[in-house]
Formats: sequence, C-alpha cells, structure tokens
Amino acid sequence: MATPQQWHELAQQLRVDSIRSTTKAGSGHPSSSMSAADLMAVLLYEHLCYDFSNPKSPNNDHLIFSKGHAAPLLYAMYKAAGAISDEEMMTLRQFGSRIEGHPVPVLPYVDVATGSLGQGLPIGVGIGLAGKYLDKLPYRIWVLLGDSEMSEGSIYEALELGGHYQLNNVIAILDMNRLGQRGPTMLEWNGDAYAARARAFGWHAIEIDGHNLDQINAAYKEAEAQTDAPTLIVAKTVKGKGFSEIENKPGWHGKALPPDAAERAIKELGGERHIHVDVHKPKTDQAPQRPPAQPVQLPKYEVGSSVATRSAYGDGLKALGAAQPDVVAVDGEVSNSTYAETFAHAFPDRYFEQYIEEEQMVASAVGFGVRGYQPFASTFAAFFTRAYDFIRMAAISRANIKLCGSHAGVSIGQDGPSQMALEDLAMMRAVWSSIVLYPCDANQTAHLLQDMADYTGISYLRTTREKTPVIYSPDEQFPVGGSKVLRQSGEDKVTVVAAGITLHEALKAYDQLKGEGIAIRVIDAYSVKPIDVKTLREAAQATGGKIVTVEDHWIEGGLGDAVLEAFSGAEGSAPAATLPTVVKLAVRTMPTSGTPEELMDAAGITAKHIVNAVKQLVG
Amino acid sequence: MATPQQWHELAQQLRVDSIRSTTKAGSGHPSSSMSAADLMAVLLYEHLCYDFSNPKSPNNDHLIFSKGHAAPLLYAMYKAAGAISDEEMMTLRQFGSRIEGHPVPVLPYVDVATGSLGQGLPIGVGIGLAGKYLDKLPYRIWVLLGDSEMSEGSIYEALELGGHYQLNNVIAILDMNRLGQRGPTMLEWNGDAYAARARAFGWHAIEIDGHNLDQINAAYKEAEAQTDAPTLIVAKTVKGKGFSEIENKPGWHGKALPPDAAERAIKELGGERHIHVDVHKPKTDQAPQRPPAQPVQLPKYEVGSSVATRSAYGDGLKALGAAQPDVVAVDGEVSNSTYAETFAHAFPDRYFEQYIEEEQMVASAVGFGVRGYQPFASTFAAFFTRAYDFIRMAAISRANIKLCGSHAGVSIGQDGPSQMALEDLAMMRAVWSSIVLYPCDANQTAHLLQDMADYTGISYLRTTREKTPVIYSPDEQFPVGGSKVLRQSGEDKVTVVAAGITLHEALKAYDQLKGEGIAIRVIDAYSVKPIDVKTLREAAQATGGKIVTVEDHWIEGGLGDAVLEAFSGAEGSAPAATLPTVVKLAVRTMPTSGTPEELMDAAGITAKHIVNAVKQLVG
Repeated sequence: MATPQQWHELAQQLRVDSIRSTTKAGSGHPSSSMSAADLMAVLLYEHLCYDFSNPKSPNNDHLIFSKGHAAPLLYAMYKAAGAISDEEMMTLRQFGSRIEGHPVPVLPYVDVATGSLGQGLPIGVGIGLAGKYLDKLPYRIWVLLGDSEMSEGSIYEALELGGHYQLNNVIAILDMNRLGQRGPTMLEWNGDAYAARARAFGWHAIEIDGHNLDQINAAYKEAEAQTDAPTLIVAKTVKGKGFSEIENKPGWHGKALPPDAAERAIKELGGERHIHVDVHKPKTDQAPQRPPAQPVQLPKYEVGSSVATRSAYGDGLKALGAAQPDVVAVDGEVSNSTYAETFAHAFPDRYFEQYIEEEQMVASAVGFGVRGYQPFASTFAAFFTRAYDFIRMAAISRANIKLCGSHAGVSIGQDGPSQMALEDLAMMRAVWSSIVLYPCDANQTAHLLQDMADYTGISYLRTTREKTPVIYSPDEQFPVGGSKVLRQSGEDKVTVVAAGITLHEALKAYDQLKGEGIAIRVIDAYSVKPIDVKTLREAAQATGGKIVTVEDHWIEGGLGDAVLEAFSGAEGSAPAATLPTVVKLAVRTMPTSGTPEELMDAAGITAKHIVNAVKQLVG
Repeated sequence: MATPQQWHELAQQLRVDSIRSTTKAGSGHPSSSMSAADLMAVLLYEHLCYDFSNPKSPNNDHLIFSKGHAAPLLYAMYKAAGAISDEEMMTLRQFGSRIEGHPVPVLPYVDVATGSLGQGLPIGVGIGLAGKYLDKLPYRIWVLLGDSEMSEGSIYEALELGGHYQLNNVIAILDMNRLGQRGPTMLEWNGDAYAARARAFGWHAIEIDGHNLDQINAAYKEAEAQTDAPTLIVAKTVKGKGFSEIENKPGWHGKALPPDAAERAIKELGGERHIHVDVHKPKTDQAPQRPPAQPVQLPKYEVGSSVATRSAYGDGLKALGAAQPDVVAVDGEVSNSTYAETFAHAFPDRYFEQYIEEEQMVASAVGFGVRGYQPFASTFAAFFTRAYDFIRMAAISRANIKLCGSHAGVSIGQDGPSQMALEDLAMMRAVWSSIVLYPCDANQTAHLLQDMADYTGISYLRTTREKTPVIYSPDEQFPVGGSKVLRQSGEDKVTVVAAGITLHEALKAYDQLKGEGIAIRVIDAYSVKPIDVKTLREAAQATGGKIVTVEDHWIEGGLGDAVLEAFSGAEGSAPAATLPTVVKLAVRTMPTSGTPEELMDAAGITAKHIVNAVKQLVG
C-alpha cells in the first residue's frame, strides 16, 4: 500500500497533467478533471485491478468515465500507469491522435465512448450483469459520475436495475463538485439528497469528503465489501481543486487555462511530476467459462403457412442461443409481444429482464458486448426512439449489439399511432456502420438473425405484428446487402420495391396487373441498409427507369430513400446513375386506430395503391 | 359532495364501461382500467374541476392518463361527465372514431397523446410550470400513472424537476396494481419504495389503499393542501379489480374479455349503469394575463461580418420574446452554448432551466404548448436524440413546439463525435408534420426563428458552433419551403445544393471553379423540410441534370436525401420532368477530434471536395 503522501503526489500529478494537456490543446475540461483527481489517485494506487500490458484480459476491472469530459484526468491516469507516454498524452484533441476530447475505444483501455452524459453508469450496470451472472468473475466496474449528469433519467434507470439485480460489483463514484456547465447543479452540495435517492433504489450509499484521501480509501474498501448491493460514493469535491484562482468558481467549465494561468496553477500544485504507479494486476487469471459454439439449427417454416416475423424472431433467437453460448437477450418488459420470451423460457440464465427501461436496455446490451457476448435487445420498434442517443453513442463505441424492433408501422392496427414505429428505419439507417434488415417472412427472419449474429457492429431487425405468408424455402440464403427479385420477365414495365409487410402487397399487385396484361418486376429489399445497389440499378434499366417503392413507414428516411440513395454517387466512386422516375408509397398522414387492412389502405400502401401507381407510371 | 355509495356506483360503472367497450372492440386494456376505477370515480365526483362544455377554458384542470393504455377508463369518465355519448364510447378502436386505442387530442378533452409510457408525468410537470409561474391560475394537473412506467428514467426527470420547482399544482396518482404486461413489476406492491423515491426527489408522498374510497378522497384533499411540493399518491390496487375471475391474475394485460366472460363480469359488477356526474366547474373564470403582442424587431447583422448562427439564435429569441409575451424558453443546462442564455437574461421569468434532462425538456415544451405558449427548447443537436420518443409523441399530440439544436456536425471540432449531431436532420425529417430549417448565416437565422414562431406544429432549427460569414441582408425573406439561388448563369454545368456551414464551402468552390472556367449554380437549401421542389427541379433542368449535395451530416436521411426526395413522386402527383445524376457529399466515416477545418476536410465536405465532385460530373 502506498502512503497518503504518495496518493497526494499522484493526485497533484493528475491535476498538473490535466492542465498541461488541455492548455496545450487550447480546449478541454481541466476544472472537471481536478475535482476528481484525489478520487482517482487512490483508486489507481490501491483499488483498481488492471493489467495495462493486457487490456483484453477478461479479469481486468472496468473503469468508465461516465463524465466523459473529464477525459484529461483519465489520460493522466493512463500515463501514470505507463499505458501511454507523456508525449502521447500531450496530443490531446489533435487530429490523428487517440487522445480525443472525450474517451473513445480507439484506445484499448477505454471500453465505451462517453461524453453524452448519463450513459456510463447504465453501461457499467450492463457489464455488472455480465460479471455477476455470466462470467462469475471478481472484476469490478468503477464508474466516475459527474453531478450534472445525475439529472439524466437514464441514471435512475441504472440505479433501479443495478439495485434490482444486486450488482455489488458496480461501484459508482459521484464527483459532487456543485458546478455544471452553465451554473450550479440542481442539488449543489446536497450530498444527503443524492445518498437518499441511491438508497431509495436499493444501493449502498456512502458520503465522504472527496479530497480526504483516507476517507476515499475507506469508502472504496466499504464498497468492495458489499455482497448484495451496488454502491454510490457521494464525494463532496471542489471544481478546479488545487488552483486557488479557479476553485469553486463559475465560468471555468470546459475552459483550458491560458498558458500564464497554467504556469501559476502548476506551480501552486507543486510542479510537474512523473510518478509511475504499478497498478494491481487482477486477482485471478481464471477465464470465463463458456462451452464451444455448435452449428446453428435455424427453425424452418413451411412455405404457404402464416407466421408473424416477430414470432420467428423468438424461434430464431432460441436456435441461436442453443448453438452459441455467447448469445444473451434483454427486453423492455414486452417479451411476450416481441417473442423474446421464447428465448427467455429456453435460457433463463442468459435472459435479463430490463423492465420498461429502453435506455438501460440498450446500455445493458452495450455492456454485454464489452464482455464479448452477443446481446440481442428487443422492444416495440417505436420505443427504440427512446434510446436513440444510446444507439448513436454505441456506434461511437464500436459496440456489438443486435436490436430487434417489433410492431412496425400502421399494420399493427387498433392500438393506434403511439405504438406504431414509423421512423425506425430512418433512425437506424442514420447510425454509423449499422445494418438494417426487414424480413417479410419467417424463414427470412431466421436467416437474417443469423446474419446479425455474424455481424460485428450495430444491427437492426424490424419485425411485424401481423402474421404474413411464408414465401421462402427454409434453405434460401439472405446475405446482408442483397435482395430477392421475386417476379420478373422480359416485358417488365415497372419495378416495385417492397420489404416486410408491403412485399405481400406488391405480390398481390403483381397478380392483379398480370391479369390486366401489365408485367412488373417485384424486388424484396430485405436489406434496407446496405441496399442492393446493383440489383436496383439493373432493374431500373430493365424497366424503363420506372420504380415504385412501398413501405409501412413515414415517407422520410425509410425504404424509398434507401432506393433513391442507390442511384446517387459519391466523390471518387463509380459515377452515379441517372435517377429513375420513382414513385414513393409510404405513410404521409397521421394514422389512427383501425384494422390493419383499413390503416394500410388509408396510408396508401396496399396492392390497390401499388396498382394505381404502376398504371400512372406506364401512362 | 356525493356519498361513498355514489362513488362506488360510479366506479363500478367505469369498470363495466371499460369492459363493454373493449369487449366490443375485441382488444384493449380492461384490467388496467379496472384497477384505477375507484381512484378516478372519486376524482371525477369531488376533485376534478373541468367545464366539459368548454374544454378550451384556461381554468380547467388537466387530467392526463400517463398510463395511456387505460384509455377505456378515460372514455368511461368522459361518458359519465356527459362529454361523449355511450354510443360514441362504444366505437372504441374503430377506424374513423375519435375513441382511439390510446388517447389522442383529436378529442378536445385530451391534452396530449399518451401510450408511450413515462411521458404523461413529464408533460404534466411542464403544464405545472406554466400554471404556477406564468398563468398563475389555480388549476391542477392530475396525472394517472401506471406502476410499470415507474421504471422509465423520464419519470425521475419529472420527479426531479417537479420537486425542484415545487409544483404543488401537480398531483400524480400511482395505480400500483403490481402486474405489468409480461409479469410482475420490479417493485410489485412495495409502496414504501415508491414513496421513498418520491420523497427523495422532494415530493410529498401518500400511501393508500386504492380501493378504499374514503382514503382516496382524503389523499386528494391532502394533496390539494400542499403549498410547495407536488404529491405522489401511491395507491395499492388490484389489476382487474371487480371481476373475481381475473383479479390480480397474470396473463390479462391488454386483453379484452370474451363476450361470455364480459357478461359474467358485468353481472358481478352490478350491471350496466348510466350515472351522470356534474363535474365541478373551475373555481375561477379569471383569464391568464398576457400583454398583447408587438411587431417583432429582429436583430440585424452586417453583411461581411462573422457570427455564429447559434449566437443569432439567442439574439433572435430575445427579439421574439420582447415582442411576443407568449414566447418561453427551456434549455438543457447548456444555455451558454446554445445562447438560450441571451433570452434567459432578458426574460428570466419566461426561462425555465431544465438541467440535463432532455426528455423532460421536450415534455416541458409540450406542456407550455398545451397552455398556449410558444415554447423554444434548445440543447446540443446531438442530445435531442435523447428525446426522440418525446418528439415522436409530440407529433401525435399535435403539439406546438420549437426545437433548436446547436453544435451540428463535424465542424464543432475538438470535442469529438459524442458532441456532434450527425443524425439530427434524418431524425427530425422523419417526424410527422415537422419543418426542418438550417441557416447558414445570422440574418437568415433570425428570419427562420420568426418562421418557427409563425408555424403551429413541430419545427426544428439546426445551428452551427463556428462563426460563419453573414451573406444575406437583414431584409431578405426566407419562407418555409423556399431556397436561395445564390449563384447562377446561363452556362451552369452543375447545381451544388448546400445548407448551413457547407453553403460557405459551396461558395468557395464556385469561386475556384469560376477561375477554371466552370460555372456552377449554388442553392442554399435552408428549408430542408419542406424542400424547395420547384427550384431544385428547375436547376436540374438548367444544369444538364447534374447535382452535387454537400452536408455536415451522415449520408443517410439528411439534405442529400431531401434533394433526392424532390425528384420522386407520389401516387397521383406529377413526377419530375428531368431526372438528375446526384453526387452526395456527406460524412461517411466516424469523425475524431481535430480542428473544424481538418474534420470537414477528412469528411470530404469542403470546397476542395465539391470542386472534385463537380469536375467528376462534368467529366
């Protein structure tokens, strides 16, 4: 154990380094780093167990800066631990550096990107679930929280779920420095209030002076001794601590010290130091126990039968789970609607109920992904809008999560617009590196689930409430980025592009138009992103540049836009094709209650409307 | 005052009617209605003050079913109050009926759509802010909460803000019936836990038996007597109460009783009744005091000066506020970054700090809109993703809210991707009835703010962190749905469409290409939605069908897709005459930290890249 004087010296170094790097960068958050320096110094010397020479070790603790803007402090810790050099630390915020303005997992010691506040704790809870219930390893999850972010609702989702699952491996450290970006926080230094909240959610709470090194050390020990509750340490701190000119003063959030002030600050802090800390190695080198994966036996459905794709999601997930022990599932209290319950009943040990906490649900998935699991998260597609910021940040985290949204579009019927996802394709297409899949039948659903399991990144599957006819054989393959040309001839006058429930309307329209002597090509664009550019361009050419798109989604950002996108180009890429004439059938007016048929007809996305649009195009 | 027997009879009627309407519809949520029937019967008889002959009265109480799925109970109350007929009530969930599966404000007694859980209380808090601090009228906001929705983080945002602002006019009634959709709630009947949470957030909490009519009445009285705290009444109830076959049984969520079971239930409940309740009229007919609006004097900026559009947002909002007393502003603890502080300093009485609670912030705006105010809500554009479900639902509520997202795109620079909005245009375009505006200079920003004030619905303004040159005269007009052709000649080879910060890159590209003898047309598409179809189609025709779009946004769903959309058609509409070849310049790789210039160049959206794309098109 180091001496309190060593702790203090390290803390001063962390402060000095936070100032040095931000002043050099000309921007950043030194004052928010300085308030937490004592907390982190004691953690680094005495409590964190982390093999910096092996950041992939499954036994390492996890350290998450939920207050991501204190990144300079985190980098100063990495420097002290010998993980990065002082030189690299000083590249903070420079183009091309791994030392970004907020932490990103381009650095191997960073599990997830933070900087959108209120996300680090929920993700920590997700990792905690994996640690306590799946890995069953003694690693801990240390989460540094800012006090401003304690306003975010997602923090309370994390408190609820962490308390409910008794995650004693999660230790949250609240850097209560009283000052937010714009002024005082709602609770300022009312530590009792934070502690009372934590206790009301089943957490162990400890109030300390966040600059008293002995109190800090004792609090960590007390937290480590918990057996059935996570801990929140409420540490009263001073923003800008250590430099008297800015201590506890408003107006110093997110501002680098000018060089002259930095010089005075470093002097007041005792000058530059280059202390190296030998961080404790993990207490065990035991690897998580996981049986080897087996070949997947996907469910098979008879062509001509009628099955809801949401129900095939449940079957497919169960099949994946049977073959791959790393598959886990979470759901937002609607598993009997999304059919995640099929998995939950088969593998209760790998299913974690998230209640109605969509943000926490996505964060849990990200946390499972951090631990190498393949997490599938499901709820009504409409309610993923609740977690869009978490999905956006998951992309920055290079997370591996699989999302399934059920009850897409007006075809859900009577429940009305609050339950209808009509913007989910737009939302999910605009997520970096995402794939967006939309099956029309049960066999396709099962295969697309396999595609999702095989994809590392953010994948999204859109399922339908209503039963739809099974049209594909169980042996058909559905690669990501592909499509299926279901109807074609040499005489095709128009290409109709559909997916999901509207694909069946397109097939009906085909039959009707055929009866009237008009041949159309029908494409199932099950891979909405990436869209099948080649097939669409060929079809446009073959059908005189006439396309009808039809989707159960708002007109903006969905399948129709994905099809248009297929004809545009990028700088330096193969030249763009001239746009075909595209008629987009999509939802344009606010839906109501009604039967699926009534609502699809009112939205103008049934066979009748496709027929009209085709006839209009062929003149 | 009615007798307890009258309360009971009404409660039984509400149960019977909830069963009748859902059984007739064949779907819906009778059991969730039955648990809260006693609570609502006493409320309707004794406490609610509402003139059902004048739903627009500014003195009416507000009754919000946060548990929107209990809509059958709400409609049964409307019937008992004489607001709707029994016949209309029985059209529940039918196509064409106002009696939808979840409440929507197509019915004049419904303030806001609910059905996405955890939203009614935050909106109630918004109305409470208006009532206590602006209207200064004695109306109350009664919010019926389900216990499943108590998991949603947004509930705790509402508890925080409601407690902080001491909203004694907000009375939340928690129907703690223990059972969620899929099974038991996290806390089941642990009323103490809910009460402890509420108290930890500064609320007055009362625990009662939710089927004891005297306790209910006493709790409402106690809540009404509060002077500086909102109240949460934790009412222990039984799901399906009144029909012994389903009472407190799982598996009965969201299921209509089959006709035979309904018959038995109605018999057990004492049969059909048609009690009419003379609901108390508001205690005052005092109108809210608001001075008349004056003509707006928008700020004016000198052409050639350099001003960030986010700063013009603050100036413009202050100008609107000076002229229009119904303008109010909320911000998510970043008002010194969004410049909402300019308004806040000028009109502190009409500014309400929302701390870092983006969901609550949008809900507060919706609440102010319910009370006839013009709410402007601002935060970093990236963080509006946190509130997407609230924005989606606001559209269903036909809410009147104005959103401003600052710090758009990679051009924010060093802070890195967590702070960059790169999906906000996609997200906001896919909101029903929204307008999406993206100014490139300060004078344009001021005028677009005026457009937003004039628009009733959901409007979104995207502002830029960096200063940009002022290019428009203060007298220029910018109608919604318009655009500006900034450069054109008879020799134009390519049309470049830009908006916001990239517009200035397009102008630079114009200059450079002109020097090389290549004329281009430059269009400022400040109205991203609705997009200026006519001007774009004309430009395509005039420039040989060659278009380059350039935007500081992901490739999906933003300006480029809006431009493509302008060339597509709808069933029955005229297709575009000339179909262009479109090259889209947008952000495709994950950005990092760096200077704005470095990041825009890396993203391929600077003048250099526009020049390349134009040359590629002209071959």
